Parts: sequence; C-alpha cells; structure tokens
Amino acid sequence: MTGPQQVKAIAGKALNEADFVGVIKKALKENGLDIDTSDDCGLTPHPSEIVTTDSLVENAHFNRNFDRPYDIGRQAAVVNLSDLAASGAAPAWISWTLNLNPQWSLDDVYELTQGMAAELSLHETQLVAGNLTLSPGPSVISVTAAGYLTGQKPLLRTAAMPGDEIFVTGRLGRATRGFLSPTVAFRRERHRWRPHLAESAILASTDGVHACMDISDGLLLDASRMAAASEVAIQLESSLIPVIGDLHTAITGGEDYVLLFTASPKTNLPSWAKRIGCCAPGSGVYLDDRPVHAAGYDHFLRGTD
Amino acid sequence: MTGPQQVKAIAGKALNEADFVGVIKKALKENGLDIDTSDDCGLTPHPSEIVTTDSLVENAHFNRNFDRPYDIGRQAAVVNLSDLAASGAAPAWISWTLNLNPQWSLDDVYELTQGMAAELSLHETQLVAGNLTLSPGPSVISVTAAGYLTGQKPLLRTAAMPGDEIFVTGRLGRATRGFLSPTVAFRRERHRWRPHLAESAILASTDGVHACMDISDGLLLDASRMAAASEVAIQLESSLIPVIGDLHTAITGGEDYVLLFTASPKTNLPSWAKRIGCCAPGSGVYLDDRPVHAAGYDHFLRGTD
Repeated sequence: MTGPQQVKAIAGKALNEADFVGVIKKALKENGLDIDTSDDCGLTPHPSEIVTTDSLVENAHFNRNFDRPYDIGRQAAVVNLSDLAASGAAPAWISWTLNLNPQWSLDDVYELTQGMAAELSLHETQLVAGNLTLSPGPSVISVTAAGYLTGQKPLLRTAAMPGDEIFVTGRLGRATRGFLSPTVAFRRERHRWRPHLAESAILASTDGVHACMDISDGLLLDASRMAAASEVAIQLESSLIPVIGDLHTAITGGEDYVLLFTASPKTNLPSWAKRIGCCAPGSGVYLDDRPVHAAGYDHFLRGTD
Repeated sequence: MTGPQQVKAIAGKALNEADFVGVIKKALKENGLDIDTSDDCGLTPHPSEIVTTDSLVENAHFNRNFDRPYDIGRQAAVVNLSDLAASGAAPAWISWTLNLNPQWSLDDVYELTQGMAAELSLHETQLVAGNLTLSPGPSVISVTAAGYLTGQKPLLRTAAMPGDEIFVTGRLGRATRGFLSPTVAFRRERHRWRPHLAESAILASTDGVHACMDISDGLLLDASRMAAASEVAIQLESSLIPVIGDLHTAITGGEDYVLLFTASPKTNLPSWAKRIGCCAPGSGVYLDDRPVHAAGYDHFLRGTD
C-alpha cells in the first residue's frame, strides 16, 4: 500500500486535499458554477436524481498481490452504491472508465467485469457507459453512479441535531481486520461488505431520521465529519459499538460501508439499527466522555480522497 | 505522445480493443446485464436521459509540454459534450475524477478547473460530483456527462439509409494541423474546437435527419464506423469536403468534433450543413468512387479508445 510517506516523497512536499478542493471551488465559482463537496453525493438538475463518483487506484485502494480482479470490480461498485445509500437513493445506473496497466490480461478484465456485474445485478442496476484506456502507470478504475431518491429528499450529513441518538446499520472492523491480516485468505475478508441500500430506503422514509453518511474511513473520522458538518458534538459509548475484532481497529479502520445516522429519540427503527451514542450541543467526537482526535484513514495522504 | 509501438512494447504483445470489449460484454451478459457499445452515448432507465464517459490520459491525449492545464480542462469537457451532441442531447450535468501525478501544482489544478468551468458555463451545465486522487503514473482525467434528449429520440449512428445524403457541420483538419505543428503556438490551434450542441438540437428536431455521430478519430475512420453500423456504403466527394489545411490530413486526423450526419434528399437544413456525399446500398467508404481503408487515429493503440 502507498502510505503517507511514500506519497509525500513523490510530491516532494506534503499535499493537502483541502487546498486542492479550495482551488477547484474557486475556479468553478469564478465561472458561475458551484459544487457542494459537503456530502456523499451531488444533486443534479433533475429533482430526484443524485450522483457520486469515486476512483480505485492500484496500490492505494487495491493490490493485485492480494486482491482478485473479481473483488476489485465488486469494490468499485460497492463504494459508489454505498454513497448512494448514504444519501437515501436507490441506484439508477453506473458508468465506468478503466485506465489499465497493460499487465492486465483479457482474463483479468473479464473477472473484473464479473465482479462489477455481480454486484450491479444484485441491485438491478445497469452499466450504461464505459471507456477503456491503457497507460503504463497504476491502473485506475473510475465509477460514476446515479441514483433516484427513495424518500422526499436526500439524507445529508449536515442534518444531525443536539438530542439525536446516533446509530450504525452493522458491525465495524471486518474490512480492516482482513486488510491487516498476513494471510491472503483473511485479507480477502475485507471484501465481504455490501452497500446498505435496503437499510437506506427504510431510513429515507422514516420520520425522525435526520443525518446520514456511510463509514468509509473509520467511525471516529467519519463521525468527526458529521459532527463538523452538523455543528454538534457526537458522544459515543464504546460498549455499544458493534465490532468484529478489537475495538480500536474497528473504530479507526476504514472500508466498512455501514451507514452512520442520527434520529430523534423514540424514532421507530428496525432491529439492525444499533444505537452507539448521542448528539449534544458543542463540537467534536467523544468516546466514553473523552474527546478523541479524528483518527482514521486519510485517503488523500495514501493517494486518494 | 505514446504511439502504437510504445504501447505494444509495454504490453509485450499487441492489444486489441475489440477483445477487451468482448470479454466485458460477455461478463455483463452472464450476469443479466447488457451494454450497447455501438453508439456515442448509452441510454439510462430514465426515458430522456443519456450518458457518456471518456478519459484523457497524460502523454496520450495531452502532453504538458504543449498543452496548458486550461486547455486540458476544456478538452475534457468538450469531448464528452460532443458525444452528447452526437446523440441529440443537451447537457444536464457532468462529474469528473482527477487522478493526478503529484507534479501537478495547485496552480495547475486551478487552471484545469478554469478550463472545464469555462466550457461548462457556456452551456449552462454544472459539475455536480468530483473525486481527487494522486498516483505516480500519467495523470488521468475521467469525465461522465449526462444529457437530456432535445428531440423525440436519440440520434444514432445506425440510422443511415441508402439514398441519404451525408453532411458535416463544420470544417475538418484544424486540430490535426495544430497537433502536427512544430511550434507551440500552432499546436494550441488543436484546442479551438467546440461541441456542436446548437447544431445537434436543430438536427434532432428536423424531419428527415437519420444517422448522426461526432468525428473524433477522423472523417474516414468515423464514416467507416457509421457505414458498418448502418450497413450502407458511404460515398464521399473530396471536392465537397470543407477542410482547413491539406485534404489528406483533414480526413485522417482526429479531434475535430464536428458532427457527421445523414438526411433524406430535400431535407430542409441550415447553411452550416455541408453536403460531402451520399449513402448507397453496400458497405465501406469510397472517396471519389475509390474504396478507402478506414484510415484514422486508433485511440486504443495509442493508449485509449
């Protein structure tokens, strides 16, 4: 995996994602455009359509020594479908561009597509456009997914309110436990996630549900993003957090793709909604009443956001 | 520029785009999915929405010794907007993923975004989602553009009929003349194209207009694709073809982004529609009654399709 030091060494200096996003927003604004980078998906001019885009980069998000093309294809679908779930949308269609290192064989591309297609067919979603290029660097798989809202409006990470309870839709830690494992068989455990679209559809139509996002970079880091976006403090109770493996790994490791959401007390929620704490006036994230740094996986420093 | 030999040397063998597209379609089909790769855009489940996606790869589609970030940003927008025009759609929104080599500075990204935004603002189109990653290889800019049909149905390259006349919406050759120039100032001429969206909107609502596509890889190669897709012969008259520079360069060079379309005789067309020949029963492309090989720029062999 490309770590922070390696990327910094390539750059010759530390790179700051916020700086890049800043100049992008500035250039757009000077041309009368705007982009909302605060949430998992962007709104399109179509009132019920939203869109998200993500790339997987070889040696950053996947490593061909450990990850099979089939799993990489599934991953490319899941990370984008999970962003749709986070926003309360059902998938409508996906497009992808494959920029492949020429070491990828026909069989590799066949298996990659099998993984993408298997995931899409579970959700009755079509791949409607594609583009294939070759270049000698790390392979890059870029996916754009469009979805239609299942409720009246999108779920946002800005909507948490003091007094809300905070929930997750599944257990945390499997992906990181797999990722850290020295054995190939266990490393493949990290691919055993799914986009929580069914849960999303219920949350989007449940009165009392407020903020929602998916946990891609670890509970603590993503909770700190929700706390900042919503201008609330988030207080987590370690004994309530459903984990696989040890707690520290589970709450700081990424790629679990469960939903993190808030709701008013007494909201009627299914049993898969596991309460892990509450929201209060203030800012930041607290674990068992102690403030925590936003520890998690900084994708940009490892080569991606 | 990465040429055919260089890509072959990297691959260790010649790569065939059709082989890759074949295994992708096979894997999709085995999962109950299908993708139509015959046209410029794909249809989405939304009845009037279509989508296209394209990548620009450093040292294949652009070269930072000659191409300014501003022009690269414009190019990324234009190639996708031109595909929407080819299909008879007006742009609705765009997303992009930037996979940048860390040599790109903040100023470079600012200027790249300026170019993208300037083009989008001309067409009142928003950039609604983005993603930024870093990796040490050539930079890759992937764009997905969605559009809404301006007519009753999409314009297709399969719809040419024997007896149709065939037209272009502008002059050919400027981009290639610029590309081949030894001077930076002239090389920048290649960026003086625009997506023919205004022309597209008229064609999509004109009775008698049949097939349409954009010329991205040279008139002869793209006409051969239309001939094959529509199962007609296309007969071109060299004296009618509007060119900038010499004829051979203009009809074999790419990146002109004008529309190539067919219409029944006596169709009422604006003056920018320049008749260059006609369609007949048969197959292939003829120039002044001589059959021509489908000569043009094979993007896959230079590193992209």
